Amino acid sequence: MINIKRIGVLTGGGDCSGLNAVIRAVVKCAISRYGIECLGVLDSFDGLIEGPSTIPLTWHNTKGLLFQGGTILGSTNKGDPFKYKTLDGDKIVEKNLSEVVMANIEKLELDGLIIIGGDGTMAIANNFWQKKKLKLVGVPKTIDNDIWGTEETFGFHTAVEIATDAIDRLQTTATSHHRVMILETMGRNAGWIALYAGLASGADVILIPEIPFTIDAIVAKIEQRRTEGRRSTIICVAEGAAPKEGKQIIWKTVRDSAEPVRLGGIAQWLCEQLENRVDSECRYTVLGHIQRGGIPTGYDRILCTRFGTAAVHAFVNREFGKMVALRENEIKTIPIEEIAGKSRLVDPDSETIRSARDTGVSFGSVAKN
Amino acid sequence: MINIKRIGVLTGGGDCSGLNAVIRAVVKCAISRYGIECLGVLDSFDGLIEGPSTIPLTWHNTKGLLFQGGTILGSTNKGDPFKYKTLDGDKIVEKNLSEVVMANIEKLELDGLIIIGGDGTMAIANNFWQKKKLKLVGVPKTIDNDIWGTEETFGFHTAVEIATDAIDRLQTTATSHHRVMILETMGRNAGWIALYAGLASGADVILIPEIPFTIDAIVAKIEQRRTEGRRSTIICVAEGAAPKEGKQIIWKTVRDSAEPVRLGGIAQWLCEQLENRVDSECRYTVLGHIQRGGIPTGYDRILCTRFGTAAVHAFVNREFGKMVALRENEIKTIPIEEIAGKSRLVDPDSETIRSARDTGVSFGSVAKN
Amino acid sequence: MINIKRIGVLTGGGDCSGLNAVIRAVVKCAISRYGIECLGVLDSFDGLIEGPSTIPLTWHNTKGLLFQGGTILGSTNKGDPFKYKTLDGDKIVEKNLSEVVMANIEKLELDGLIIIGGDGTMAIANNFWQKKKLKLVGVPKTIDNDIWGTEETFGFHTAVEIATDAIDRLQTTATSHHRVMILETMGRNAGWIALYAGLASGADVILIPEIPFTIDAIVAKIEQRRTEGRRSTIICVAEGAAPKEGKQIIWKTVRDSAEPVRLGGIAQWLCEQLENRVDSECRYTVLGHIQRGGIPTGYDRILCTRFGTAAVHAFVNREFGKMVALRENEIKTIPIEEIAGKSRLVDPDSETIRSARDTGVSFGSVAKN
Amino acid sequence: MINIKRIGVLTGGGDCSGLNAVIRAVVKCAISRYGIECLGVLDSFDGLIEGPSTIPLTWHNTKGLLFQGGTILGSTNKGDPFKYKTLDGDKIVEKNLSEVVMANIEKLELDGLIIIGGDGTMAIANNFWQKKKLKLVGVPKTIDNDIWGTEETFGFHTAVEIATDAIDRLQTTATSHHRVMILETMGRNAGWIALYAGLASGADVILIPEIPFTIDAIVAKIEQRRTEGRRSTIICVAEGAAPKEGKQIIWKTVRDSAEPVRLGGIAQWLCEQLENRVDSECRYTVLGHIQRGGIPTGYDRILCTRFGTAAVHAFVNREFGKMVALRENEIKTIPIEEIAGKSRLVDPDSETIRSARDTGVSFGSVAKN
Repeated sequence: MINIKRIGVLTGGGDCSGLNAVIRAVVKCAISRYGIECLGVLDSFDGLIEGPSTIPLTWHNTKGLLFQGGTILGSTNKGDPFKYKTLDGDKIVEKNLSEVVMANIEKLELDGLIIIGGDGTMAIANNFWQKKKLKLVGVPKTIDNDIWGTEETFGFHTAVEIATDAIDRLQTTATSHHRVMILETMGRNAGWIALYAGLASGADVILIPEIPFTIDAIVAKIEQRRTEGRRSTIICVAEGAAPKEGKQIIWKTVRDSAEPVRLGGIAQWLCEQLENRVDSECRYTVLGHIQRGGIPTGYDRILCTRFGTAAVHAFVNREFGKMVALRENEIKTIPIEEIAGKSRLVDPDSETIRSARDTGVSFGSVAKN
Repeated sequence: MINIKRIGVLTGGGDCSGLNAVIRAVVKCAISRYGIECLGVLDSFDGLIEGPSTIPLTWHNTKGLLFQGGTILGSTNKGDPFKYKTLDGDKIVEKNLSEVVMANIEKLELDGLIIIGGDGTMAIANNFWQKKKLKLVGVPKTIDNDIWGTEETFGFHTAVEIATDAIDRLQTTATSHHRVMILETMGRNAGWIALYAGLASGADVILIPEIPFTIDAIVAKIEQRRTEGRRSTIICVAEGAAPKEGKQIIWKTVRDSAEPVRLGGIAQWLCEQLENRVDSECRYTVLGHIQRGGIPTGYDRILCTRFGTAAVHAFVNREFGKMVALRENEIKTIPIEEIAGKSRLVDPDSETIRSARDTGVSFGSVAKN
Repeated sequence: MINIKRIGVLTGGGDCSGLNAVIRAVVKCAISRYGIECLGVLDSFDGLIEGPSTIPLTWHNTKGLLFQGGTILGSTNKGDPFKYKTLDGDKIVEKNLSEVVMANIEKLELDGLIIIGGDGTMAIANNFWQKKKLKLVGVPKTIDNDIWGTEETFGFHTAVEIATDAIDRLQTTATSHHRVMILETMGRNAGWIALYAGLASGADVILIPEIPFTIDAIVAKIEQRRTEGRRSTIICVAEGAAPKEGKQIIWKTVRDSAEPVRLGGIAQWLCEQLENRVDSECRYTVLGHIQRGGIPTGYDRILCTRFGTAAVHAFVNREFGKMVALRENEIKTIPIEEIAGKSRLVDPDSETIRSARDTGVSFGSVAKN
Repeated sequence: MINIKRIGVLTGGGDCSGLNAVIRAVVKCAISRYGIECLGVLDSFDGLIEGPSTIPLTWHNTKGLLFQGGTILGSTNKGDPFKYKTLDGDKIVEKNLSEVVMANIEKLELDGLIIIGGDGTMAIANNFWQKKKLKLVGVPKTIDNDIWGTEETFGFHTAVEIATDAIDRLQTTATSHHRVMILETMGRNAGWIALYAGLASGADVILIPEIPFTIDAIVAKIEQRRTEGRRSTIICVAEGAAPKEGKQIIWKTVRDSAEPVRLGGIAQWLCEQLENRVDSECRYTVLGHIQRGGIPTGYDRILCTRFGTAAVHAFVNREFGKMVALRENEIKTIPIEEIAGKSRLVDPDSETIRSARDTGVSFGSVAKN
């Protein structure tokens, strides 16, 4: 017999297509399978600090969430309650407000939390579990697909399909105008989106953080294509890709800002470099937040549903401090502490990378292509 | 040192999104990695019987195939060369023309074949390998996702996304008009498409061949929804789903034709049954061949590329009589004979089915819901 | 100075993508421009007969309606209050309940109605204006695009894009399998959807109610294509298209049911006829309700917004008994009585039809092609 | 009796979805209606200067072009033959090579040209007609929809749907994160794409070149929304929109480059300005070339087909020096010289703008909202 009456649900970190679908699955499963009530915590942990600010989650207000991007709970990637930034006079100081969170959880009569979030949010969750014994289960979220311990995360496939569609569109312009067209996808540490979208759309060059590139190798690829009669080249580059000489080179060249992403990026730098080297017009597009929002693919909605229901079962089975994860097509649970500080990166020797090379893709690295 | 100069490529069986993407990957990998020439055999094995009728496959004429549905090689699901139907005067007789095929392969100076096809085509391939020692490697193809031995086949995801999009559209009409809306997907023996598309789109009832249903259970679900204030119901049904009483009941009720698919089907029968039982208008749509064609999803294009390159490697490694397969996210090879006569069906107790039930989906089977 | 406090809004007839977008525009314009309150009447005129049953329409609950198919007000194409079908013992009798409607409008303190609907709904609206002096403005709605007096109606473009996408998918299968593929679109009296989708997707044969066809002409087209080396043919047929011999022939051949639409249709009949005549496999798909629902195209959302705001202005300007209409790219108003009993059909000699013929499309009519 | 044997076809200027569909319609109509041969001129007028470089256009090689973005003829927006840039030693000099073009046209035995292009290309065409009496008919092309004399151009609707879809995706992220999200569309002189996509997707602020904006007005709108409880704001801005103070202000602030488009733009500038003024995170995306390529919408394919066939008829009717144009839903012809130097801009008092304002859209101009 379970003794759980009410669970809080929160979403943390950047936006990701499918968050609402996870919320829906959690609520439907909790209510219909176990008669557990769900309370939505607003704006990540912020909702448990000030306020508390929450909304009841019911069968009714989660209707239609399968196809709705974003999160009805709101999100933020700012506030870690263990070092919460607050104003002390003019100065920003960090305070440990974790006890405020615990007090609010008690006040709200929550038996624990289901926490949907990425790396950062999972690290906070782990602290709450380890230090405060807060009963919680995590659901991994990142469009970058780089959370360690799970073979896939929701939102990734949607992002790949969006980026694939964008390159499909650039392809025709590249061909018509004999241009080098560059698309920059998300992916600071891991190149999954760029790799998959590039492979899916037939990009000629794919640049990812895991494989440092040289301009020389890219120029060689463009010129090789010209000698074969193909005057256009498509480059798909992850925002975190960098030349062998390192990231410093890029950012220094472009600007000396503290916030590198905002005022330019790898696609723009690459475009400038290539225009000086090849006899083709170069154009770039930064896909940006379009990858994060909107209707999830069917594939992601299914993954969200499986993750959401599995999280409720895990909670009921008292597998606290764990995260649901996809392993060999099955949903399993793993201790959140196991994933801390790790990232699931693209293996440069993986079968997928080799398959890409076999179809003529260059990764901008001279040695192998 | 490899000693392979020229491979034939053929596609067999029903249409499936991604066939062209596999052809492209085979050709690109064969040419650029190994310097092997590729010859396209037209209209499945027919191209090796009469004619022979072939086209050269080059880097040039496989350009753009990633996003093109169908197969530039043509296909047919008719001719098994071991029992080829031909006219003898007025009568259709079956002849063994396998030696004609072998002779043509020799005449075309092919070192062997890469055969892309489903169950039926793989059975023919196996016969050629077992009985004629024809060097060949298979690539599994079916939108139904029911080929044994591989966790997934290309074309399936595209079909799921198309069916999901269709149900998304039916949802709004169902809600506005308080109707029961039925969508029939493909899937004669296996319910994968109906299960995935139904789950992805929030269908209320999913009917698949693996779980016999009763009208009573469906009516109960519709009525339960009404008591909860929801006056519309979405049913996603695989073409091969059948009531507990068996398929006979359906076809007899509807018609007594020898060709059950053409003059009606499960969706129509279901619609008639339900209109007599519930106080709502019922409407049905049979999605049909729309599921088979058109641009593949990015996901499928990647799978196609991996399958295609893996098939070339397998051929070069002389793994004849084998089929490439997806196992735990890696492409492996398995003997074609192992898969003969088997089907990969939905396990009624699988985690995905349970996840669906946990979010309120009924499978039309009273006991569990 | 306007003296209007509260308007009722209702949607009548079959589903149509964009209904919600019109509701949103009406509410936003009424509230923000004129401070007029909006009350949503549920389930067409039914909401003014029993109950009354209504919901307030606010800035808040119309949020997100731009991209949501269907109508949050519910709809029905049954109840004409002037001859409302009710049960009298066992018999269905028609009663004039128009006074009930008028009484409820007074009870709800409505200054009048904005009525969004098709032919049938407009006829009812006209009766209320002519006979009861009910203050009302109409907004034309039909995916068939056949309302007289307006060059276009919302929902039509969405239906065309959906049908175009479906034929795009059928094209690849037709080509791969050398088949005749038939797609049946909506359009009982007018062939707009079939004409536009067929033209957009490169259908070889387009059959519409306005141009009676012969099987001979279609067979001739298929055979002509074969002699030119093209072994597949795409036919796009409106549900109301009929052979020269008349509709009777079709329905008698297929069945002798009182409800012709449900148990078969023109696509199925055509498929059977052609299979007997040509040496190709024939397949058909009936697109059905998928055309009616789901997210409207951007184009339709704009038209909906323009119609919705124009309806409010017309009401404020006391242009009662009128319908907003698109004329030469401007929104105008016309008396509803002018459109009664008329339909906007495809002109067989229009420039669009001639353009289609010029690119090789056959309309199944021997004389001209 | 017509006396025309062979027409050249060329595409000039930037890429635009639907170019291939026009080519297809021209070829199909010329061949099947009039038995006129078509020759494709490569890379705009360049193909008539060096070379000449052409490809025959046949029923066969225009197959499938309806759904293929780009132009199989290649394009460029560089070379005006009347002042063709060539290298003279180290210097770039302009030469009049129009006689080379005329000579090549004679050499190729062309009876004249069908020229598909934008403003710039039409100006060149007009020169050829006025000064060289080259027989030609123009087809207007621009995704910006700003060619004078035609109510619409192909490629525009496709661009609008793409931008609408992008904003739909940004909407969910904006809402989840309470952000100001900015999307920059194409449109240097005319704001059609931004206006239509913004209106279609429910953008809160739309900024177009025709209506100078102030940061104050935008800030006011964002703050007004906050007081109403809505913490996110969507801004759709045309690349050519500018503040009341003029464009100089923008470019000076951001950089002092000669090539303003490449190193930043209005969206970035706006983002910086707003972050300093409002208490919300701001993010921007520049949609760029994604708007230009890829599969055209059904709507655009129909327009392309009508334009293409009409151009052939116009040529056959010897309406040289004219351009086909859409006027009140009919294809007409107008003298190319009439359109020279004019642009079709958005009228700030048009019904569409007023409809947008009525639904709460701000155009960043204080006075009216």
